[in-house]
Amino acid sequence: MLVYEIIKNKRDGTVLSQAAIDQMISGYTDGTLPDYQMAALLMTIFYRGMETDELAAWTRAMVHSGEVIEFAGDGPYIDKHSTGGVGDKVSLPLTPILACLGMRVPMISGRGLGHTGGTLDKLESIPGYQTGITVDRFKEVVDSVGCCIIGQTASLAPADKKLYALRDVTATVDSIPLIASSILSKKRASGIAGLLMDVKTGSGAFMQRFDDAFALAQTLVDLGGALGMKVRACITDMNQVLGRKAGNALEILESIEVLRGDGPEDVTELVVRFAATMGVMAGVCDSEAAGRQAVDAVIASGEALQKFAEMIEAQGGDPRVCDDTGRLPLDAQRAAFLAPRTGHIVKVDCEKVGQSIVALGGGRRRIEDVVDPAVGLDVVARIGDPVVEGQPLATVFYRTQDGLDEALGILQRAYQIGDEPVPALPLVLDTI
Amino acid sequence: MLVYEIIKNKRDGTVLSQAAIDQMISGYTDGTLPDYQMAALLMTIFYRGMETDELAAWTRAMVHSGEVIEFAGDGPYIDKHSTGGVGDKVSLPLTPILACLGMRVPMISGRGLGHTGGTLDKLESIPGYQTGITVDRFKEVVDSVGCCIIGQTASLAPADKKLYALRDVTATVDSIPLIASSILSKKRASGIAGLLMDVKTGSGAFMQRFDDAFALAQTLVDLGGALGMKVRACITDMNQVLGRKAGNALEILESIEVLRGDGPEDVTELVVRFAATMGVMAGVCDSEAAGRQAVDAVIASGEALQKFAEMIEAQGGDPRVCDDTGRLPLDAQRAAFLAPRTGHIVKVDCEKVGQSIVALGGGRRRIEDVVDPAVGLDVVARIGDPVVEGQPLATVFYRTQDGLDEALGILQRAYQIGDEPVPALPLVLDTI
Repeated sequence: MLVYEIIKNKRDGTVLSQAAIDQMISGYTDGTLPDYQMAALLMTIFYRGMETDELAAWTRAMVHSGEVIEFAGDGPYIDKHSTGGVGDKVSLPLTPILACLGMRVPMISGRGLGHTGGTLDKLESIPGYQTGITVDRFKEVVDSVGCCIIGQTASLAPADKKLYALRDVTATVDSIPLIASSILSKKRASGIAGLLMDVKTGSGAFMQRFDDAFALAQTLVDLGGALGMKVRACITDMNQVLGRKAGNALEILESIEVLRGDGPEDVTELVVRFAATMGVMAGVCDSEAAGRQAVDAVIASGEALQKFAEMIEAQGGDPRVCDDTGRLPLDAQRAAFLAPRTGHIVKVDCEKVGQSIVALGGGRRRIEDVVDPAVGLDVVARIGDPVVEGQPLATVFYRTQDGLDEALGILQRAYQIGDEPVPALPLVLDTI
Repeated sequence: MLVYEIIKNKRDGTVLSQAAIDQMISGYTDGTLPDYQMAALLMTIFYRGMETDELAAWTRAMVHSGEVIEFAGDGPYIDKHSTGGVGDKVSLPLTPILACLGMRVPMISGRGLGHTGGTLDKLESIPGYQTGITVDRFKEVVDSVGCCIIGQTASLAPADKKLYALRDVTATVDSIPLIASSILSKKRASGIAGLLMDVKTGSGAFMQRFDDAFALAQTLVDLGGALGMKVRACITDMNQVLGRKAGNALEILESIEVLRGDGPEDVTELVVRFAATMGVMAGVCDSEAAGRQAVDAVIASGEALQKFAEMIEAQGGDPRVCDDTGRLPLDAQRAAFLAPRTGHIVKVDCEKVGQSIVALGGGRRRIEDVVDPAVGLDVVARIGDPVVEGQPLATVFYRTQDGLDEALGILQRAYQIGDEPVPALPLVLDTI
């Protein structure tokens, strides 16, 4: 088919066939289709959207652009993915808990960029931890330990890597079908049968508006079904830091607290809820209630923390951090961010909170930046809390005075204190 | 400004500033802006359209991507441009008539591609005629003879050439603002103050639907005004061959017939009407009626044909063709296309008629094809005419038997003969 005709047909509202899509994706992956024709098609998709079957065809073509992992064991192989936020360390304590419940978790995760943190950066704050192991070793660890978290490899869904780079410079990132296909192509190629999507919404999320988050969640569930995967989606709040800690080593510390049973209420609730839901999805728990009991049991027994240590060790990291968190790189200086006035915390610009961590050196402005594991925030005040002028709202872990000054300036603008109290925000807004 | 932001702003409905547009057009012209970002922007413009001022800014940026011709004389410098069709040779007799009326016509024209013919190809069927002369010589001929017709030069609006090539492979050709800016950027750069646009509509036109033709005509008039040019537009019929002859040398022959006062009624009417309208636009005629009289006079006196001969001679061609049309390359073989049944001609697929000329070798499938000046059609039957089975509908001028067979097959499918008579079509549908 002529590429011009394919673009024109899509432009004029025709649903693309699997053959047309295969031609575009395979041509783009092998370099025979030029960037400018793919850019025109991506912008067309931005405006026209994609029907579920068409999007499934597009995603399948992305999956088949590279290797598809097949596991030798019985599984059940399942994964959880978040659209990202500030302080979202849920994957870290969740993964070993799922393994303890009998699931197998082959997690392929990402790095932080802009105001959002990345699971790989957090794990790499554990001395020795390797996120770049081979696919063969990844499969081995998943089947022996029960869980493994690595970075995106060049062999899985290479079309996604190329398409993402193009979307990033052509203003076609924020297209729901393109986001959904990017996520699910990589997940499908990683060999899982089930996926729980945590779609974040609020001032610190990629999808700031609930309606957009809901549309993405629905698209992911529908697309998962069309691809023969079991996908569920939760829409959860990202209007403030999840838990108390945000920053790389700080989030490992808080994850260990969760696995010890003394983590903050909100992040613990998400971990327990997701584990129970996924246990039911994977058929290892009879009900969510039974799942919650099983999660509580593996935390109380220390099994879950032990599993986290096993995964760390299997990936070259120092498992002793689980018992001795003093081994984590938390050698930054500390300063308090104080309430500028008395009142109630009515609103937080959570994207700014994330940017304050970037200012401290804990995140990336550009993909090639190096992150400092030690810096970050320990936030004590949440939306709805009454505060008194001069009271610490957060502890800032900083490396340089300039970084501290910039971060405090950003935080001042991020926290809005009003006269009237506001209700606390719900944590989970919807489940599909 | 970040290119990403410019694309995203346009995508989300913001009107682009002159600065943003200048950055994109100049970057694209000098090669610093990559094709894929321009492709994304073009597709965005396809969906979003452009407001008049924004489109004027875009067009100005295209004009200033290269040389802008300035004439030394008083003018009035005026031009006519057609969106193209089958048998549309109006520019050829019109140009010398305008010169005789005291206007100066610096016409930059194009070649045929696909089913439409091109003025340059027609002129080059005159032995010796050069369409690739320098801009300096072009200016000289315009001011000495009064008219000159050349091809697009690399120095005028180079952004248009690059943009057109990109649109041609990214399904962004048929965007009204992009079409309008492509036409008017070249016309503005050619130094004219006034332009009459002939926007063709019907089965042989680029704009098959009247509504699209009307929208383009309105956009051209509005854009012309915003650029400080006087632009008028006529929407004219292209549901069948204009005049009788279609093909390169055949159209020169018919143009000479028009200049002798014995051309077909439809093409003569368009030439006279356009000349009168342009005479009023340029201020050399007091009214359209006075303009028509003046046109009739320069045809009757032989002055107009003499001016055509002068222009041909100034551009290196053999002016004797005007008196002795036997010097035109019309050495093809002839065959008749016969009516397959008795009835009335109710419909013509004029795009197919144009394709039959391509099949004969008189047009281009691809830009690098060479055209045969001698082949083409002399069509006698028009929509609304009664016909008898076996009656010749057209004479086919052919070079090879294969070409003839293919052309006759296409013509059979192009002409629809029905039982009931239909009215003849109006020639001019609207004027803006």
